[in-house]
Amino acid sequence: MKNERLILVTNDDGYNAKGLRAAIEVARPFGRVIAIAPEVTQSGMSQAITMYKPLFLKKQHEEPGVEIYSFSGTPVDCVKMAFDYLLTDRKVDLVLSGINHGSNAAVNVLYSGTMGAAIEGSFYGCPSIGLSLTDHDLDADFEAAVKYCTEVVRGVLESEPELPLCLNVNVPVARPEEIKGIRICRQTKGYWREEFYRREDPHHRAYFWLTGEFVNQEPTAEDTDEWALANGYVAVVPVQVDLTDYARMQYLKRIIKE
Amino acid sequence: MKNERLILVTNDDGYNAKGLRAAIEVARPFGRVIAIAPEVTQSGMSQAITMYKPLFLKKQHEEPGVEIYSFSGTPVDCVKMAFDYLLTDRKVDLVLSGINHGSNAAVNVLYSGTMGAAIEGSFYGCPSIGLSLTDHDLDADFEAAVKYCTEVVRGVLESEPELPLCLNVNVPVARPEEIKGIRICRQTKGYWREEFYRREDPHHRAYFWLTGEFVNQEPTAEDTDEWALANGYVAVVPVQVDLTDYARMQYLKRIIKE
Repeated sequence: MKNERLILVTNDDGYNAKGLRAAIEVARPFGRVIAIAPEVTQSGMSQAITMYKPLFLKKQHEEPGVEIYSFSGTPVDCVKMAFDYLLTDRKVDLVLSGINHGSNAAVNVLYSGTMGAAIEGSFYGCPSIGLSLTDHDLDADFEAAVKYCTEVVRGVLESEPELPLCLNVNVPVARPEEIKGIRICRQTKGYWREEFYRREDPHHRAYFWLTGEFVNQEPTAEDTDEWALANGYVAVVPVQVDLTDYARMQYLKRIIKE
Repeated sequence: MKNERLILVTNDDGYNAKGLRAAIEVARPFGRVIAIAPEVTQSGMSQAITMYKPLFLKKQHEEPGVEIYSFSGTPVDCVKMAFDYLLTDRKVDLVLSGINHGSNAAVNVLYSGTMGAAIEGSFYGCPSIGLSLTDHDLDADFEAAVKYCTEVVRGVLESEPELPLCLNVNVPVARPEEIKGIRICRQTKGYWREEFYRREDPHHRAYFWLTGEFVNQEPTAEDTDEWALANGYVAVVPVQVDLTDYARMQYLKRIIKE
């Protein structure tokens, strides 16, 4: 088909993650798919870019309508490689990042490699959607996620939305029939508090593993993504990247002499 | 002094970068300094965290009022190590991240390890300030940056500001007497377009280096950080972390069936 859409798929769990296959399953009915995903897991890589290392690209798989490449950088590097090298002569209609193994709701949007790639995608003139399932299991069941992410993608592609458009979509762990529906939400206020496991290596050097717990600062706020997920809904948060705290500008003008 | 302030210093250029010393010079007149900075450069690491590797902490230097540690993780890992392990029994009064070798104005705030650490610091109940000089040179002249960053820090510490407070401070390359002053600004709209250098390694594998150019979408907007820097001012942007695009929520409710 001459007018078939082109959909770029990426993720942060790596090109051979089950969730990438689930994202391709979401994308395929809407057009051709080119997936460029990290060679190894890049969870927690946020919007990181690789500045001081050479990066390697490799075609890993091809089937009708689907090509899968691995790239040795971060999720954002994958998006840049797609738009600024591999697909420079083609129009990309949509970026899908995921489906992530694990939630990217609330403040996780800041740390997430999945959402780093989705945000980067939105800088290139097409809608960009990060997809996540709140289940870290490598063998997680993506059936409900595929069903609801497909609904979100259809809504976006059928509406020709004003750009930039970036969405953070999170699906709770449930059977498709148990999910109550989709809710358009805002990002929950909260933060992580860490506990460092301390151990010693065979050379008696102390080492630390990062582990933590999310603190939800507004657990009863029904318009938040965490509330939606906890109550059986798919959470969809529109994302923008102007971090300016406009409400504090006048205050700052009083405490810092211009 | 019993009531001496405690200031946490970190950066993304590494514990032995000249800019870390400049940040310590800013901090020292206001209190005791504990610096925990990455073992190696972490430029472009955004708000990345290390999930799947053990991390090593090492005291590198001590002098009156100043301790410097290296930590083998990202800038955000350094902040978490400080608050959630090393300093759990002490009150930290301020986080300073920098002084970065290179600008973190505009959309760079998203990719910057310096600002990743500053944002993380603001989650721990004290003011947090990212400091950057628009000069990538390892041997950059930080004199003007130290002078103006000191003014910003004084303004914040003397006002006991409402929290959370996170600032993105960028200083142009100039002699102190050439700088026209400080401007409270908003983040400039823009994005990066990349060019990938393609080369071949000795085994004939193609490899890529990321290189790019910033596209300023509003070069004449006088209230932006890029305009301030281009016109000889220090740019101070208040930063917040709710990425919700509130303006698009009603629109989304029309295109995606809840």
